[in-house]
Amino acid sequence: MQTLRVELGSRAYPIHIGAGLLERAELYGEGLAGRSIAIVSNSVVGPLYLARVSATLERAGARVVPVLVEDGEQAKRWQSVDQVCDALLAARLGRDGLVIALGGGVVGDLAGFVAAVYQRGVPFVQVPTTLLAQVDSSVGGKTAINHARGKNMIGAFHQPLAVVSDVSTLDTLPDRELRAGLAEVIKHAAALDRAFFDWLEEHIERLGRRDGEALAQAIRRCCELKAEVVAADERESGRRALLNFGHTFGHAIEAATGYGAWLHGEAVAAGMVMAAELSRRLGLLGAEEVARLTELVRRAGLPVTGPAIAAERLREHMATDKKAEQGRLRFVVLEGLGISSLRGGIDARLVDEAVRSGSPGA
Amino acid sequence: MQTLRVELGSRAYPIHIGAGLLERAELYGEGLAGRSIAIVSNSVVGPLYLARVSATLERAGARVVPVLVEDGEQAKRWQSVDQVCDALLAARLGRDGLVIALGGGVVGDLAGFVAAVYQRGVPFVQVPTTLLAQVDSSVGGKTAINHARGKNMIGAFHQPLAVVSDVSTLDTLPDRELRAGLAEVIKHAAALDRAFFDWLEEHIERLGRRDGEALAQAIRRCCELKAEVVAADERESGRRALLNFGHTFGHAIEAATGYGAWLHGEAVAAGMVMAAELSRRLGLLGAEEVARLTELVRRAGLPVTGPAIAAERLREHMATDKKAEQGRLRFVVLEGLGISSLRGGIDARLVDEAVRSGSPGA
Repeated sequence: MQTLRVELGSRAYPIHIGAGLLERAELYGEGLAGRSIAIVSNSVVGPLYLARVSATLERAGARVVPVLVEDGEQAKRWQSVDQVCDALLAARLGRDGLVIALGGGVVGDLAGFVAAVYQRGVPFVQVPTTLLAQVDSSVGGKTAINHARGKNMIGAFHQPLAVVSDVSTLDTLPDRELRAGLAEVIKHAAALDRAFFDWLEEHIERLGRRDGEALAQAIRRCCELKAEVVAADERESGRRALLNFGHTFGHAIEAATGYGAWLHGEAVAAGMVMAAELSRRLGLLGAEEVARLTELVRRAGLPVTGPAIAAERLREHMATDKKAEQGRLRFVVLEGLGISSLRGGIDARLVDEAVRSGSPGA
Repeated sequence: MQTLRVELGSRAYPIHIGAGLLERAELYGEGLAGRSIAIVSNSVVGPLYLARVSATLERAGARVVPVLVEDGEQAKRWQSVDQVCDALLAARLGRDGLVIALGGGVVGDLAGFVAAVYQRGVPFVQVPTTLLAQVDSSVGGKTAINHARGKNMIGAFHQPLAVVSDVSTLDTLPDRELRAGLAEVIKHAAALDRAFFDWLEEHIERLGRRDGEALAQAIRRCCELKAEVVAADERESGRRALLNFGHTFGHAIEAATGYGAWLHGEAVAAGMVMAAELSRRLGLLGAEEVARLTELVRRAGLPVTGPAIAAERLREHMATDKKAEQGRLRFVVLEGLGISSLRGGIDARLVDEAVRSGSPGA
């Protein structure tokens, strides 16, 4: 097991990465005996791992309250928040309780948001079981649900007490979701770390084959990069926004196609190619580097082009993005592989061209 | 105008108290020109004051987005959060926007919660227009909505940028709501300040007659007391809980009678008498002091007895109170007028007796 730390003063917390961690009660925190612990999972992950985590916590003397929500992006809505809060209240879980998110990014976002607002905030622990959640969404304290008008529009910053990333859980992950996770791995490298990008070009097929050693190495590097960024900028006023590379385009793809049709990672994959194209049109990135990024995304088994939707329609979805300020679009652009920055006031025509360059129907 | 300060480090903020403040644009914050500002109010307060605040902000160059929710406690539910978020998203209000809560405690709690979770948090300003909100709920950063299983069960700590208490707005306050506000005034004195309690015994009728000078003095003292407590204990781990004097009983009354039947202040009034009775039964408070508190509550035109509901049923509603820890009840008790403390492990029989002592039907 490797342990990293997210340095956030009094709210600093560890990220544990390794195989077989679900059964290690001490990783979930101290004082488990007599404590009420809600485990929030979904109808797919619950049957696989809930019994194992419950047994571990009960052996340590905790009172476990299991709550299963539906599978998929549609769980990120108010009805699920209400369902989980209802179960917590019925079980009389107090502010001294604990909420554990057991699942992928959706479960983590939902359970984390519940933990942020239930009785004005209770502690929680992230137990991510997908590659996407292990490399990205479980770290950094962002929680949210979706609104009909946009993804993640209602949420909170609520840091976990700990992140327990058991890489053994990736064994049961469907291929499509593994690939979606690789998109966020590539994002970390493309936005922040040239050497990591080079490493990925060498090892992307090993990751696709679920080589355990390669996966652990990639997860660790992503968590290091993210922990550093989050520690420097918890609430996304500056550097943290760089982690949104590919996400303004990606969120627009998800919104325009209806959440869930494209996996988040798939949308981010195509979005990164568009953002690289935009960077090239702004004179910041060479054609060769765009080609290297596009090729890496393709080798990861991810889409390099967007859906058959008009560029103008995609752009409408960007204006409600949280990164928009007073209606002006801002994008994370690349000034090289591993070097990114935030740019505002970009000409809509260039944005549309970047979308069209990678979109069959636009 | 008087200005106090809530000392919370980087999140410190001013409380402005005085007549005719609604028209003073500079009190709502800096950089209003070009800023999108949502004013959340309700169907009763909106028609009285929204136009005035809007005009003030628009003169300063802001783009105003008015949002009216329904009147009453029922507005503290998810549907209202969704309604306000929808209006904010439709108006493309970004993280650089501002939310103003214009109204009483319900509007402040709701709009504050929206500000806490909309796009993971936007700044907000409290403009309380009821006595209850001016002396209590607008200060301290507690925001919440209700859940079918309990009041304020879903919420967040989200400090305002400023509180603008225009005492002129109390002119339009219905008598019943003015009295409900006096309950929280008495609470501050009974829990924290003996000299203020003595002052109230002299001046309670002036407050009931809306004597402007007396009201301003009472509001200022309550805000001073609350600001001090909040600065020392923002998230209610210790001293701040003392401000819940009368509230464990009061919340149970509200829950058992259905939210809205009793005004919050009315329930707190009867709850304070019960809490004083409990304190007497624990040997902490003399009968004479219980009588003084009861008499002050009565002179304020507030109920000194609870509803005709069995003590056991009221007690069931207390166990889901946020102050409960692992199912054990905790109460704020008095050890004298103006001296309070938090006590746990109290015998249910004593609690029931305290309820019955002040309840016609129990």
